[in-house]
Amino acid sequence: MTKYVYDFTEGSRDMRDLLGGKGANIAEMTRLLGAERVPGGFTISTEACVAYLEAGQAEPEELAGQVDEGLDRLEKQVGKLLGDEEDPLLVSVRSGARDSMPGMLDTILNLGLNDRSVAGLAARTDNQRFAWDAYRRFAQMFGNVTRGIGGDRYEAAIREQKNQAGVSGDMDLTADDLKQLVARFKALYSEETGEEFPEEPREQLDLAIKAVFGSWSGNRAVEYRRINRIPDDWGTAVNVQQMVFGNRGANSGSGVVFSRDEMTGGPDPSGDFLPNAQGEDVVAGVRNPRDISEMPELMPQAYGELIEILGVLENHYGDMQDTEFTVEEGRLYMLQTRSAKRPAQAAVRFAVDAVSEGLLSREQALMTIDATRLEALLHPTLDPDTSYEVLAEGISASPGAAKGEIVFTAKDAVAADSAGRDVILVRAFTEADDVAGFFAARGILTSEGGKASHAALVARGMGRPCVAGASALEVDEENHELRVGDRTLHEGDLIAIDGTSGVATTDDVPLVEPKVDSNFETVLGWADGIRRLGVRANADSPVDAAKSREFGAEGIGLCRTEHMFMAADRQPRMQAMIMASEESERRRALGELLPLQQSDFEQLFEVMSGFPVTIRLLDPPLHEFLPAIEDLVQKVERGRAGDGENLRDLEKTLDRVHELVEINPMLGTRGVRLGILHAEIYEMQVRAIVRAALAVEDRSGEGPDLEIMIPLVAYEKELQLARDLVERVLGEEGGDRLRLSVGTMIELPRACIVADRIGRVADFFSFGTNDLTQTTIGLSRDDIEGKILARYIERDIVDRSPFETLDSPGVGWLVRLAAWTGREANANLGLGVCGEHGGDPESIAFFDAANLDYVSCSPFRVPIARVAAAQSAIGLRKEGAK
Amino acid sequence: MTKYVYDFTEGSRDMRDLLGGKGANIAEMTRLLGAERVPGGFTISTEACVAYLEAGQAEPEELAGQVDEGLDRLEKQVGKLLGDEEDPLLVSVRSGARDSMPGMLDTILNLGLNDRSVAGLAARTDNQRFAWDAYRRFAQMFGNVTRGIGGDRYEAAIREQKNQAGVSGDMDLTADDLKQLVARFKALYSEETGEEFPEEPREQLDLAIKAVFGSWSGNRAVEYRRINRIPDDWGTAVNVQQMVFGNRGANSGSGVVFSRDEMTGGPDPSGDFLPNAQGEDVVAGVRNPRDISEMPELMPQAYGELIEILGVLENHYGDMQDTEFTVEEGRLYMLQTRSAKRPAQAAVRFAVDAVSEGLLSREQALMTIDATRLEALLHPTLDPDTSYEVLAEGISASPGAAKGEIVFTAKDAVAADSAGRDVILVRAFTEADDVAGFFAARGILTSEGGKASHAALVARGMGRPCVAGASALEVDEENHELRVGDRTLHEGDLIAIDGTSGVATTDDVPLVEPKVDSNFETVLGWADGIRRLGVRANADSPVDAAKSREFGAEGIGLCRTEHMFMAADRQPRMQAMIMASEESERRRALGELLPLQQSDFEQLFEVMSGFPVTIRLLDPPLHEFLPAIEDLVQKVERGRAGDGENLRDLEKTLDRVHELVEINPMLGTRGVRLGILHAEIYEMQVRAIVRAALAVEDRSGEGPDLEIMIPLVAYEKELQLARDLVERVLGEEGGDRLRLSVGTMIELPRACIVADRIGRVADFFSFGTNDLTQTTIGLSRDDIEGKILARYIERDIVDRSPFETLDSPGVGWLVRLAAWTGREANANLGLGVCGEHGGDPESIAFFDAANLDYVSCSPFRVPIARVAAAQSAIGLRKEGAK
Repeated sequence: MTKYVYDFTEGSRDMRDLLGGKGANIAEMTRLLGAERVPGGFTISTEACVAYLEAGQAEPEELAGQVDEGLDRLEKQVGKLLGDEEDPLLVSVRSGARDSMPGMLDTILNLGLNDRSVAGLAARTDNQRFAWDAYRRFAQMFGNVTRGIGGDRYEAAIREQKNQAGVSGDMDLTADDLKQLVARFKALYSEETGEEFPEEPREQLDLAIKAVFGSWSGNRAVEYRRINRIPDDWGTAVNVQQMVFGNRGANSGSGVVFSRDEMTGGPDPSGDFLPNAQGEDVVAGVRNPRDISEMPELMPQAYGELIEILGVLENHYGDMQDTEFTVEEGRLYMLQTRSAKRPAQAAVRFAVDAVSEGLLSREQALMTIDATRLEALLHPTLDPDTSYEVLAEGISASPGAAKGEIVFTAKDAVAADSAGRDVILVRAFTEADDVAGFFAARGILTSEGGKASHAALVARGMGRPCVAGASALEVDEENHELRVGDRTLHEGDLIAIDGTSGVATTDDVPLVEPKVDSNFETVLGWADGIRRLGVRANADSPVDAAKSREFGAEGIGLCRTEHMFMAADRQPRMQAMIMASEESERRRALGELLPLQQSDFEQLFEVMSGFPVTIRLLDPPLHEFLPAIEDLVQKVERGRAGDGENLRDLEKTLDRVHELVEINPMLGTRGVRLGILHAEIYEMQVRAIVRAALAVEDRSGEGPDLEIMIPLVAYEKELQLARDLVERVLGEEGGDRLRLSVGTMIELPRACIVADRIGRVADFFSFGTNDLTQTTIGLSRDDIEGKILARYIERDIVDRSPFETLDSPGVGWLVRLAAWTGREANANLGLGVCGEHGGDPESIAFFDAANLDYVSCSPFRVPIARVAAAQSAIGLRKEGAK
Repeated sequence: MTKYVYDFTEGSRDMRDLLGGKGANIAEMTRLLGAERVPGGFTISTEACVAYLEAGQAEPEELAGQVDEGLDRLEKQVGKLLGDEEDPLLVSVRSGARDSMPGMLDTILNLGLNDRSVAGLAARTDNQRFAWDAYRRFAQMFGNVTRGIGGDRYEAAIREQKNQAGVSGDMDLTADDLKQLVARFKALYSEETGEEFPEEPREQLDLAIKAVFGSWSGNRAVEYRRINRIPDDWGTAVNVQQMVFGNRGANSGSGVVFSRDEMTGGPDPSGDFLPNAQGEDVVAGVRNPRDISEMPELMPQAYGELIEILGVLENHYGDMQDTEFTVEEGRLYMLQTRSAKRPAQAAVRFAVDAVSEGLLSREQALMTIDATRLEALLHPTLDPDTSYEVLAEGISASPGAAKGEIVFTAKDAVAADSAGRDVILVRAFTEADDVAGFFAARGILTSEGGKASHAALVARGMGRPCVAGASALEVDEENHELRVGDRTLHEGDLIAIDGTSGVATTDDVPLVEPKVDSNFETVLGWADGIRRLGVRANADSPVDAAKSREFGAEGIGLCRTEHMFMAADRQPRMQAMIMASEESERRRALGELLPLQQSDFEQLFEVMSGFPVTIRLLDPPLHEFLPAIEDLVQKVERGRAGDGENLRDLEKTLDRVHELVEINPMLGTRGVRLGILHAEIYEMQVRAIVRAALAVEDRSGEGPDLEIMIPLVAYEKELQLARDLVERVLGEEGGDRLRLSVGTMIELPRACIVADRIGRVADFFSFGTNDLTQTTIGLSRDDIEGKILARYIERDIVDRSPFETLDSPGVGWLVRLAAWTGREANANLGLGVCGEHGGDPESIAFFDAANLDYVSCSPFRVPIARVAAAQSAIGLRKEGAK
């Protein structure tokens, strides 16, 4: 017989897969803090959920009996019976998946109440109003969760009751009012379902368990999993736990507290606290909570105990904790603990403090950082040197600054994002349905809720800046208006937010790039000591190169020379070269470009002196340097209709564009193919590189390690021909003393397949995973990202863009093949990657495991890559140890 | 010590790699016919050539001594000394590579003559003129071959001598004239080289051997190898052979004879014969030779012996032979024998006759056919029902008809071909430098030369129609004019030739498609009995389907449904569907297309009843059905400038095209991606297919085996979604009784890599090797075939287009991987190929070895595929036996 039900005293944190995160943590807490600190109960395993869903929403046979036994044990432990008329045991029924999915799955509180037990509760607590309020809450949640009756229906009933009673606040409703409200709720239940509200507590429990199981398949949860990459077949556990009440008067309360400041990582606990309230009120963000710093004044003993417990938990888990607690008539209960989600600066600060406190080793501390989130540290901030008018202040819910047009719905955010517009999602508060909008917006601004509100949690989780609870704002979602005092803003108006300082402004404040702070420097220093994988930057200019060095790049992994031809003083010469009908004309234009390109390289080489610089020779098709064909056609037509000035030039250009333009330029005359058709271009570039390197060496005594990279090689002979050209020019320029190697960008499937052949004529490979992804999957990034990819994620064909995280079964397989066979053929072959995947932590772990030498990414992602590479090294070491 | 020199009595045909084709065959002939029929001599191995070239044109040390020994043996055998003053032994020095490279490598005759031995030769033959003529020939060839002195210089010297002697023909020069001519040639030699003409025979021999070695690296030879796919590192052997003389009077002569009619394969020997001439005169095509049928009259005994020997040779080699012979004063010498290159109908006729004569088994006979050349059988002919005016008649040098614009140089032919124009290359005669032009032209027409001329040999080798020796034509290459009587034709004028009948015409005669004749039927019947691989056709219409059946296709491997939308009555509805802004409008347009598509399918299914039909759902991007963007921009501009009528419609269409158009449509919204974005299109197509199949079954009792093919799948889930759609529609239409399977076109590298996953949800794979080649190599076929590929072949990066013959190390590797892992995952997985490679013999052998079930190709290539598949099966069986 499968064991589906585990008492809290039976489990531990190692049983996360089976008991879910919450169940495992409650069990661990119970072990750690003792049963008196943690309300008792039991967990129904994720396996039961999976079995339930697989059987088409039918409970496994064994389950009912095991729940009976669990309940029996709990009743004995507490000394009360579920729904007892005299002194009822009440329980909460909560979901708990392996990974936290905040607000996505369902919860029912106060289960066990019915028309009889409510009287017992009232008598025992000597508080009619409390008892009926608890019953009211239960009836509402039960109807909502088990039968899907809309929250708005219940809100309407509450409004009616308030009208009838002539009061305005929920707190003004008397016990009798609440009694009538329960009657309204039950009537609503019957009306909606055609059934009586179930009075029998065991039946209530059974329905609640099934509802939680079912919520795993709900739309919200499915959407959340898709975005957060959680497998569909994990299922959720169900935790049945004795209720404790934070709403039993002034000596009661509920709160959410982080063991340290969750925004900064500083040593003081942070969080929200609501006196005389149940925990749900805090998380929902509907009542403005008090800061946890006010708690010692109100209930000093409970606070002291809480602080002590937070220390115990941090020590035990070796990580910053995010806990929920309730104080029931002065007695502190811990309801939940888990590793705190935190913004990047908090993660970094915690890591540094934890090491200096002796809590964690450097490696352990590094592993507490989510490298993906570090991007937030590299988010821009509002320029501190610009003064601007603050529109509204709120809570700094997720750090970083963002600027964009106002939108009011998730749908509009998605549409605007698809159209390439930056938007800020502005809402009163957010719900699970808004998750897709978070993804699409640059930032989120809400008028309600605190640090633990849905908006704050999800924004932090996604690395989006967020200002929450900016209560001066009046958000009119219906009319798509935002009113602040006497100002009215509309959809499309510009707004900027700073989630670090918690302000919003309508001034067009510049965003400035961040610097690396000292804590981050410390962490990066550890990472550099641990990682095997090198980190370089993709940089085309001296400015970018200097920035890269500042961020700790150990060289340039990709310098795209075409950008040098795009500059205003270059393009006319480039065009002249392309338009040349005679060899001599073409050579003259190239001759003019040579000193310009040489001077570009000299500046770059000065910055990178002593470091490797990988220079890619011209890659894009020539027509990219000429005007677009559509514009030309239009101008020619207008010229023909009008005065005809310049018409001949335009026509000539159009003819040349017609010759050059290609149906699929991605697969056309570019890369080494250009270098073979027009060797004079590559020759000029190599000459400029060699002359620049010699000049820098002459001036400063040291130049860079030159790595000349030939793009788009499919056949070994292509590389051989290019290599011959480089060596010839090197000889002609007297550059034999330079450190110079010749390699290729591996960006075509064929190159991966014949990597052994190509490896024999290459000094290095650099995987161009952008183009390799395009060709391997047959997806043109420009064409499909907006159109197809969104639909593909929706239909669960892919879980994310293969241009963000390497498609490991497809593209990754080719990378591994090429790395392996290339090195088999040439043991000294250097291996790197210069696609955008070089800055993505999951992809970095893949490249590390594939034994590449380095990754190269945009300068701002270099720090992320350094940390991710260290984490990967630690992970691989652990795997190796196993 | 390496043995480099082999006496003719030491070698055999198995030593081809070492001794070259000619050396091995001479040795084999020597064994077979006895030393008295084959002039004696020795072969210097290809290894010596390779060693010579690798050492930078330096002979291996051992070589000189071994040549001395070989010469010594020969002198003893013949009883004469090389260059002896009294009775000189003269030798020929000829190249001989593994594969025949006609006219590409060098030859020197009459070596051993000098100012002293010429007198001995004259005395011994009692023929001063003969001796001096021989010396004259030697001096000319020696200077030309060993020192590269231009043939024009020698021709000029001959002209001067003739002027001086006051004669017009070569034959009119007397012995004294020739003596003076030799003096002129030697002066020319000294003038060009600054050295004396070498008198010492052993030195002559040494220089000649080196020159032949060196000719392997000559431009002509390199070009020829490139086109004929011969590796550069094979090298050539050198054959030193006793000279015999066909020019010693009326009872002497030389000829080239095929053991059967080389044009038809008929039983009578065919060939050319020149009385009183050396062999070179026949091959060069400068003197018009006599037909071999005239030989019995002139020298009946030698002819009788020749016929007997041809029989012996055919029996021994088991193949039709192409031989060279010389009759010296009545005595027959065989100089060479090799398998005859022959046009397709001759190959087929020979195969059938050889089996009926008991010469060969069916399998052996099949292997004598070059399947690639069978295409010639499927070349069009001039319509026999159209009367036309014959411009000129010539020799039917290579069969098939062709039509195109006149060009006069190989360069112009290549340029015109790149521009997509059909051309006929017209020349007086062709030389090795013209080879690239053969490749580019549809056909070749010459005014000089016979069946064994360079033009004829190369044209047959390449399967190009050729009319040679049309002596009424006066080709003025300098002025790019062709004169025939009083007519003058210019470059660009239309001309048609029929290489089967040997005529040329300027009338625009239609070309008609050929039928399969009874011999070919016989061969195809054998092939079908032997091959394992199935052969299907790519056909989109009932007409093509019927044609496929006629050619023996066992089903349709690819029916492209988009062609059904291109028809005039469909396109407006397709455009309406694409332009629809509302769902209802789109569904209405699709509703109108459904019955049309259904009727297309019904016609197709009727033809293919009982056979498999693979139907590919819509593949191309939608904008292909709309007008081209440039045209639209032009029209909109004109509309704006003018009356503006239709302007709004045009603008609307332009907007939609802008939405749909893609930068790289090959990698964009097409194939299954379309089917996922616009499921209604696939749904309509599947409905039409199912309804059509049901209707055909209802009418005739049997329908086809439906195979619905989903294009461009990269992820298994894509196929699963499409499969779900097909199954749903099948259910809705009550089509459960149909034989229907669902599979995918494998045309992306990713699909090959994850073929195990895709294989689990597919009933079959059909490799779309065209697109797979495009994505694997990153080559857009449309864009690079004209531009890049020619240059790549020239630079020896590839030896042929990967779109003609499968790129086996790259694309082929992926095919094998996918076939293997797909079947591992799904043992019942059907495997086929529907790219154009399905009709290419070399690729077919690859697919057979990769264990695919069938190939599918254009209807006209089906017979080729059947033969190639049989040959592949025989080859694999032989390999298996080993």
